[in-house]
Amino acid sequence: MGGSRSPDRDKQSSSNFDVDYVITYDIPPNAESAEAEASFTQLIEDLSAVGFATEVRPGRTPSSLLVFVKLASPALLKSQVYRARVQDWLFGVRPSAPAPSDPSSSSPSSPPLPSSTSGNGGGDGSKAMDRYFAEEEPVTEAERLRLTYELITRPRNEGGGAGVTPRLGRWRFVSSVFPLHDRAFNRAWIASWSKKYYLDESDIGLIRDRFGEQVAFYFAFLQSYFLFLVFPAAFGFAAWLLLGPFSWVYAVVNCLWAVVFFEHWKMKEVDLAVQWGVRGVGRIQLPRTQFKFDREGIDPVTGEVIKVYSPYKQLARQLLQVPFAAACVAALGGVIAGCFAIEIFINEVYNGPFKQYLAFLPTVLLTIFNPTLTALLTRLAEKLTEIENHRTHDAHQAAFVQKIFVINFITSYLGIFLTAFVYVPFGKILVPYLDVFKLTVQRFTAEGKTLQTKDWQINPDRLTRQVIYLTVTAQIVNFATEFVVPYAKRKIFRTVERVQSELSEKKGGAAAAAEGQQQKFRQDQPEEAAFLERVRDEAELDEYDVAIDYREMVVQFGYLSLFSVIWPLTACSFLVNNWVEARSDAMKIAANCKRPIPWRADSIGPWLSALGFLSWLGSITSAALVFLFKNGSGSADGSPWDMSGWALLLSILLAEHAYLVVQLVVRSVIRKLDSPGLQKERSERYAIRKRLLERMVEWDVSGSDAARGPGVSGGGEKITRDTLEEEARRLSVAGEGKLEQLFWQRQRSAAETIQIGRALIAETAANKTK
Amino acid sequence: MGGSRSPDRDKQSSSNFDVDYVITYDIPPNAESAEAEASFTQLIEDLSAVGFATEVRPGRTPSSLLVFVKLASPALLKSQVYRARVQDWLFGVRPSAPAPSDPSSSSPSSPPLPSSTSGNGGGDGSKAMDRYFAEEEPVTEAERLRLTYELITRPRNEGGGAGVTPRLGRWRFVSSVFPLHDRAFNRAWIASWSKKYYLDESDIGLIRDRFGEQVAFYFAFLQSYFLFLVFPAAFGFAAWLLLGPFSWVYAVVNCLWAVVFFEHWKMKEVDLAVQWGVRGVGRIQLPRTQFKFDREGIDPVTGEVIKVYSPYKQLARQLLQVPFAAACVAALGGVIAGCFAIEIFINEVYNGPFKQYLAFLPTVLLTIFNPTLTALLTRLAEKLTEIENHRTHDAHQAAFVQKIFVINFITSYLGIFLTAFVYVPFGKILVPYLDVFKLTVQRFTAEGKTLQTKDWQINPDRLTRQVIYLTVTAQIVNFATEFVVPYAKRKIFRTVERVQSELSEKKGGAAAAAEGQQQKFRQDQPEEAAFLERVRDEAELDEYDVAIDYREMVVQFGYLSLFSVIWPLTACSFLVNNWVEARSDAMKIAANCKRPIPWRADSIGPWLSALGFLSWLGSITSAALVFLFKNGSGSADGSPWDMSGWALLLSILLAEHAYLVVQLVVRSVIRKLDSPGLQKERSERYAIRKRLLERMVEWDVSGSDAARGPGVSGGGEKITRDTLEEEARRLSVAGEGKLEQLFWQRQRSAAETIQIGRALIAETAANKTK
Repeated sequence: MGGSRSPDRDKQSSSNFDVDYVITYDIPPNAESAEAEASFTQLIEDLSAVGFATEVRPGRTPSSLLVFVKLASPALLKSQVYRARVQDWLFGVRPSAPAPSDPSSSSPSSPPLPSSTSGNGGGDGSKAMDRYFAEEEPVTEAERLRLTYELITRPRNEGGGAGVTPRLGRWRFVSSVFPLHDRAFNRAWIASWSKKYYLDESDIGLIRDRFGEQVAFYFAFLQSYFLFLVFPAAFGFAAWLLLGPFSWVYAVVNCLWAVVFFEHWKMKEVDLAVQWGVRGVGRIQLPRTQFKFDREGIDPVTGEVIKVYSPYKQLARQLLQVPFAAACVAALGGVIAGCFAIEIFINEVYNGPFKQYLAFLPTVLLTIFNPTLTALLTRLAEKLTEIENHRTHDAHQAAFVQKIFVINFITSYLGIFLTAFVYVPFGKILVPYLDVFKLTVQRFTAEGKTLQTKDWQINPDRLTRQVIYLTVTAQIVNFATEFVVPYAKRKIFRTVERVQSELSEKKGGAAAAAEGQQQKFRQDQPEEAAFLERVRDEAELDEYDVAIDYREMVVQFGYLSLFSVIWPLTACSFLVNNWVEARSDAMKIAANCKRPIPWRADSIGPWLSALGFLSWLGSITSAALVFLFKNGSGSADGSPWDMSGWALLLSILLAEHAYLVVQLVVRSVIRKLDSPGLQKERSERYAIRKRLLERMVEWDVSGSDAARGPGVSGGGEKITRDTLEEEARRLSVAGEGKLEQLFWQRQRSAAETIQIGRALIAETAANKTK
Repeated sequence: MGGSRSPDRDKQSSSNFDVDYVITYDIPPNAESAEAEASFTQLIEDLSAVGFATEVRPGRTPSSLLVFVKLASPALLKSQVYRARVQDWLFGVRPSAPAPSDPSSSSPSSPPLPSSTSGNGGGDGSKAMDRYFAEEEPVTEAERLRLTYELITRPRNEGGGAGVTPRLGRWRFVSSVFPLHDRAFNRAWIASWSKKYYLDESDIGLIRDRFGEQVAFYFAFLQSYFLFLVFPAAFGFAAWLLLGPFSWVYAVVNCLWAVVFFEHWKMKEVDLAVQWGVRGVGRIQLPRTQFKFDREGIDPVTGEVIKVYSPYKQLARQLLQVPFAAACVAALGGVIAGCFAIEIFINEVYNGPFKQYLAFLPTVLLTIFNPTLTALLTRLAEKLTEIENHRTHDAHQAAFVQKIFVINFITSYLGIFLTAFVYVPFGKILVPYLDVFKLTVQRFTAEGKTLQTKDWQINPDRLTRQVIYLTVTAQIVNFATEFVVPYAKRKIFRTVERVQSELSEKKGGAAAAAEGQQQKFRQDQPEEAAFLERVRDEAELDEYDVAIDYREMVVQFGYLSLFSVIWPLTACSFLVNNWVEARSDAMKIAANCKRPIPWRADSIGPWLSALGFLSWLGSITSAALVFLFKNGSGSADGSPWDMSGWALLLSILLAEHAYLVVQLVVRSVIRKLDSPGLQKERSERYAIRKRLLERMVEWDVSGSDAARGPGVSGGGEKITRDTLEEEARRLSVAGEGKLEQLFWQRQRSAAETIQIGRALIAETAANKTK
């Protein structure tokens, strides 16, 4: 492949040829070829029907096609934007409706009022729209791409999309739908970030405009977390120098920090959502195409026919989470505990031959079993979430994240838990049972009956070494697997592919020449060859999944919150790591992944509760660790076995409840401080309210005055006493002389009331004087 | 006093003479008499200026006046109702705005749209309003009274009220502003409730219409709680028969019940608020007149001048709550613990003379000190809340309730806590220290050196007896103090007053005759004498405070949640008590209190978190009680001293976390079930949204069609492929022949794209076959 180099090459490589989306289409094996042709025809027809221009080009391999898609007319985009913004307003995401046509409200100084939507403008709608969008709120690239994607994937009966759903049903040959990277922007982006020490709001804003709020939220969270890390890094360094490990002062400060960070982010999140105009966007939920329904029912709210799935069935299926969690604990826990036991046996008990080689055994076992099991359990989690049959994407994603979190929790933290809460306190009791291994080894070795073993001692440094490994070495390894490995893998795969395709070309050369008619389609035009090459590269990239990045950060936060009391330098390591992390994640999006579809989000979603959980658990583990090891470190052998259980439990109980109280206090304090985002929201809503009220007061005065003459105005400001009194008397006199009327006629005016009242007061005063 | 009996007497006693509110005016001692006169004049003038008709009559004592007030015209009420409803809409309490004037939207079939408020109707406003309110939503008595009260008390600069604030500033002579009881309704109400076993929604609805949502919420809560009590009462009875006290089965079921009740009420509360149209009413907050401000500032949201009080100062002052809570614990705790110690000494150690009399000593001491201290601390709490200087009534009330809850928590539960967690487990260690009393007694008694003491044993029945006392006897005593005592007190006071006033009349008879001119005002007209007598009676009643009733119920819930495992029949007692409670509270409102001002509310407010706290604490105390006493009851002396601390703490820890997990599960399950209230709300909002969208689609078609001819319609439904393709080609060809255009011109139509794509597919298929 690879067309001839043309002078346009440079331009080609940065221009996207106005392509909005690329659809990759897999040509199936021969048996389904007719079906694939029909489906392809359907695809192009459906896309054109909605308003897309289409082009088809061959993919890299003969068994794939690339369909290029763009919105045929700018007016279609505008109508989509308007439609989406009106929906936002209706769901309360925007404070005011966009005003596309009513000439009376299109002046830039007056934000559009709800009322203006009622104007049935027969005039130049698109001109007004042009003005509106140009002047008031530009359409960002992210918004354009998102709406285009929705138009491609939305079912036809829900607002007229093309209904193309990759890998599902009749679209199972469509393997992906992705936008193209903006090379020029990406280069500038990476270049600018690699030179900056500190990312500010405008950097995040740029990401939002290009990659949508979901990705922007990740980077905003990362940046916020990075800034917050400065404090525990500095304090941790000081604590490491002055206090040493297992300091209760460090534990308290660390927990407090976690609470403040968590509560601060909760506010910041809302703030950003308001600033970006996406607060409440979670209410506009995308239905999942895969949702299965029991029956069709009538929605009690809308009266429309909807798909119904029994909530009890769903609940019952969600209960499967319990055996799932148990399975995770059993499988992963078993492997980890087993490797742990082997490791201890080999390192600390065993003293026989091959010790230096056997030392690698547990690591090898872990490296083999852990990823396999994790992948297996992740697949299981996917299946389980699928079975739970959620109606919306958000609910599905949240349920999946929950399960993933369980798996990650076990793989990340169980090792340290075992060391801290099993190996160290109960080591002396448990290690003798490791003789199982000794016996096993003895059975297989022909050597003499007695295996050399050391006199065993609990190794108190083990915990610290483990934490250092997980917070420094593992982060570096993680970076490598996330960033370097995919790059290398891609390079290798591409070379292999090229060689294969060259081979097959040579082989099939004669046949191809015979079919010259068809082969001409395979030949790239020189002016687009470089561009197509680039698209083919991008088509092979993985899809970007923000959940993976979040997971990494949440797990990291967990180390800090749960175990940093063991090694106070943890936060320093994370500070450095996260500076790199932000850049490498940017690189990953820009170079290692397909451009993500710019979804909106109004928060970091289910990860927030994971953070809250880890922060809370941190209060317990910190208390337990300080109690176990601070006390223990006093005794000679470093074993805390001689302390009492009830004191440990009491300290945990107290720490946890102190944590909950502090959280309550911090929450109420942070709620008192005003956030700029909420202020902006309130001020917008206030402006609309005020304008409406003013209109109403106008009506109030003119309307009621015209109806009944002077006397009754809105709040009663202009009422004169005389007219009211007069009215009251008149009404009373006109009645049938009832007791009520007699009562109210007693004093004929307010003046009379005053007179009589004063007389009564004077009388009382006089009486009292006597 | 007391006018002559007229034949109108019966009618008088049930009619309210159209009076909306009665203002009682205290005539001060002589020195301030001139000031009082001026203030009175101001009062009547201000009231008339706003639109009230006024009448003045002498009060029961010469030093008080009764000012009768009614809205002078129905139009004023209507404009107030309209104004308030528009405000509700603006704050999101109602889904749609009321439509008073626009003739186009006043047809009953179409709910008013926001757009209709923009109509500047110069026509017959009041007529349209008549139609609107008559047909669409009647004005309930509660709404009328609430708006009237707001008109009386609202400052003039905030929407034109009379600004009369009882007991404050220049209105310090105004001692109260209250509406009159509707005797006929009250009689029917009490009669109907006393015959009913079960109160349903319509009964609560009646209360809502008469006394407002705040009172209705109390009765709804009471009723909901009563119904929920049936289960623990039945289960408790069974447990009492079969399981005995301190059963862990009962404890688990009881905790589960508390969680379900709490979560159910949280949903029910929202449900009721939606049904009553008050959801979110908390956002419309009444500013407190007593709010002090540091400086005037510019509101960043509204741009108006507002009163600002530093939030840091307020936070600092709120910190005073900590010493306050400490003081409560110290003072009340000291008294309770002291009396407790004395009681134990006298009952269980002391065996000397006067034992039968001395047994009453601790009760006497508690009865003297406890109410005094409670009253003192309540006053302190009031002061503290005042100092915290909250801007709104709601915030003030919530802060006050918080403090009250601390006091009540200590007075209600500390006794049992002491018995269960100090006396029983540590009794053997602590009781010997009670020799302090022995020595004290010995010093004062001349009798021989040795005081007779019994051989002391921990009394395991003590705890049960205490719980039975508090859940049965104390409830009856409570009923008496709440209901019987005020009635008796009032009767006695009234007799005393009458005697006094007769005496003074006799004495001042001659002087009065000389001042016949003035005395004539003092003489009631026969046709209104009975009515005035009734008003004077009502003026002497206490104000109804719903917080007192809530407190009683919350404390009761606490006994059930915290201690019912000691005596499983607790719930049975409460079930009976609460049946009576609902009726006696109704009686209290109808006969023992001034008619309450019908405030709105959208929840039970700060009591909800108190319930949540007690329910959570219940999981801890239940676990501890079961562990301490179930284990202990096996041994001979009933002392659980021989169990291990860590097992107790572990069981507490496990119980608490099991509780939290269960709460999470119950919450998510309850959230899944749809509530009728929320369904109603959604359906209303949906209807509005749908209508707007329909309008927009109309515009979409007509507007854009007119502007650009066929091609671009709203969601793209009516686009034809040909026109779009054509447009795309046209646009491309018109350009400057750039690469992009070349790219998109490669395939001239969708048909060509399809053709080429199919060819590629066929080719691949053919290649694979070979």
